[in-house]
Amino acid sequence: MKKINNPPIEWLGNRVRILDQTRLPQEEVYLELNNYQAIASAITGLKIRGAPAIGVAGSYGVALGALEIEAKSRDEFLRRLQGISQTLAATRPTAKNLFRAIDRMQQVAAVGEDIEQTKKALIDEAVKIHSEEVEATKKLSQLGAELIQDGFSILTHCNTGTLATAGYGTALGVIKRAKEQSKNIKVLATETRPLLQGARLTTWELKRANIPFTLITDSMAGYFMSRGEVSCVIVGADRIAANGDTANKIGTYSLAVLAKENGIPFYVAAPTTTIDLSLASGDEIPIEQRNPNEVTHIQGVSIAPEGINVANPAFDVTPHKYITTIITERGIIKEPYGEELK
Amino acid sequence: MKKINNPPIEWLGNRVRILDQTRLPQEEVYLELNNYQAIASAITGLKIRGAPAIGVAGSYGVALGALEIEAKSRDEFLRRLQGISQTLAATRPTAKNLFRAIDRMQQVAAVGEDIEQTKKALIDEAVKIHSEEVEATKKLSQLGAELIQDGFSILTHCNTGTLATAGYGTALGVIKRAKEQSKNIKVLATETRPLLQGARLTTWELKRANIPFTLITDSMAGYFMSRGEVSCVIVGADRIAANGDTANKIGTYSLAVLAKENGIPFYVAAPTTTIDLSLASGDEIPIEQRNPNEVTHIQGVSIAPEGINVANPAFDVTPHKYITTIITERGIIKEPYGEELK
Repeated sequence: MKKINNPPIEWLGNRVRILDQTRLPQEEVYLELNNYQAIASAITGLKIRGAPAIGVAGSYGVALGALEIEAKSRDEFLRRLQGISQTLAATRPTAKNLFRAIDRMQQVAAVGEDIEQTKKALIDEAVKIHSEEVEATKKLSQLGAELIQDGFSILTHCNTGTLATAGYGTALGVIKRAKEQSKNIKVLATETRPLLQGARLTTWELKRANIPFTLITDSMAGYFMSRGEVSCVIVGADRIAANGDTANKIGTYSLAVLAKENGIPFYVAAPTTTIDLSLASGDEIPIEQRNPNEVTHIQGVSIAPEGINVANPAFDVTPHKYITTIITERGIIKEPYGEELK
Repeated sequence: MKKINNPPIEWLGNRVRILDQTRLPQEEVYLELNNYQAIASAITGLKIRGAPAIGVAGSYGVALGALEIEAKSRDEFLRRLQGISQTLAATRPTAKNLFRAIDRMQQVAAVGEDIEQTKKALIDEAVKIHSEEVEATKKLSQLGAELIQDGFSILTHCNTGTLATAGYGTALGVIKRAKEQSKNIKVLATETRPLLQGARLTTWELKRANIPFTLITDSMAGYFMSRGEVSCVIVGADRIAANGDTANKIGTYSLAVLAKENGIPFYVAAPTTTIDLSLASGDEIPIEQRNPNEVTHIQGVSIAPEGINVANPAFDVTPHKYITTIITERGIIKEPYGEELK
């Protein structure tokens, strides 16, 4: 495997270079996107994915959109930037990071006077959002690694590493940090149907990090937990409500219930940008329903009869009672999450 | 879809015709197998699968093997039949039905005198095993259908219909019977990774039976249970220990834990040929570990990096405490299973 060490998302002055995650692990293809529509379609099409990463991509999208605007007045500039922001915000509904990043960009646009200065300020803000996300994921990985003991067998779901975060990683960041601390660990990586982020992306990152791992189907997690072969479960998050309820990749809820039943700690790792204090509980988190083709076709190959009903919720909500701790860059928090998250 | 209504396994006097389940749902291909090695390889290769069905196939395999033997003495005949039986028994380790059927065939062989008469008796016994299995699955489906109420949304796993049983079906038989009773039901069918028996086979059977259904990934079961969209879970079994612990397709244990956590009844449907009173608990049930390629490749397409560690246990064990009732052709039984199963 050819190792290019470009980051999975990078600002190149007037365009964004991303690693196309839909082509991994077979091919490492980098794309250069020079307009906001390309960013929006890269997010929708999962070329870039993971809650923190789409927050970063969204802010670069706003910056690129701003550069494109040829406006006669500041009002026109702001009106068009608003439209661009709405397009970017409409790409995916569940991850909080995207909306938070776009809001921050809007606030920067609102305070400027000169259009050209505002454009520059927006670029600076996007770069700042990105570097803050890198710092946050490094910090939370460092904090979270304290929970990982030598000899642990860690089960993780979906992909939450560099690819997902435009930074160091959340759940996978914690795992990588524990490995860097020379802890003897191994990972059980769920393949994560339907889009196989575990089989395609987490395995790719674990290989690069020289962390021993075993790939399993989502349905095998319970088997290994019941046999005492899982020391802890650690996952990322797409949105955390004020009470600690956590939306994450479909299947996370099942892992949390299985962990509880087997007395296994269940950790959520996420930067504070994933927290949404405006929602009282997970019931209010919008769950994205994606195209049924993602279930019935795997890399273009049909696996089911044509014309059948298929459900494809991309996320589920894990009630806070199943979550042992939430790991953020500002600390490790436990029940009652309501007070701690504030 | 062209509907051929041949049964999925049929004795044709001197050969067995089977529907190749690896080709479904894309193609309905029937194979005629005229020697025991072909039966053994059809079982190993999952051309015919499902605990009751491989019991039936195994007994036809012994009959075909007997027909092939040109022995000079009864001792030689029995010795060679023993070897054939061992080959067939070595195909798959978990389902009890296979060993039970082969044992029955061996007992028939043991009592005969004349070799030709024994061959005939073996064919008769295989046909009898098959027709008993058809009857048992019909009866248990009838009994189980009493548990299904009008308006139920039923979650099922893997494939447990005509294809799996060489009869009417176990879990899917119960569902079909409830539909025949004009109950208004719908089904959530898990795709059942790695080999997608749910996506490929259960959908195919449900379509034929005109039962409304929705295909989901295994990881989505918890999502629908937590939203109150599942009235009951019903699955088949590969082996049931004396205490009620049940080995079934990988992922079943997870569904049982999720059902318990959500207060949803969890039913196991199986003929008594699946029960193994010689094993005190599920800990003693051997779990087949299959080829990692089944996880890393889907219909020949690679979904993961090459050369990685992969686990592929084909079954898991659901402890009896998660099982609301076990539905057999001889009655519906509840805890304590120890007494009832005897």
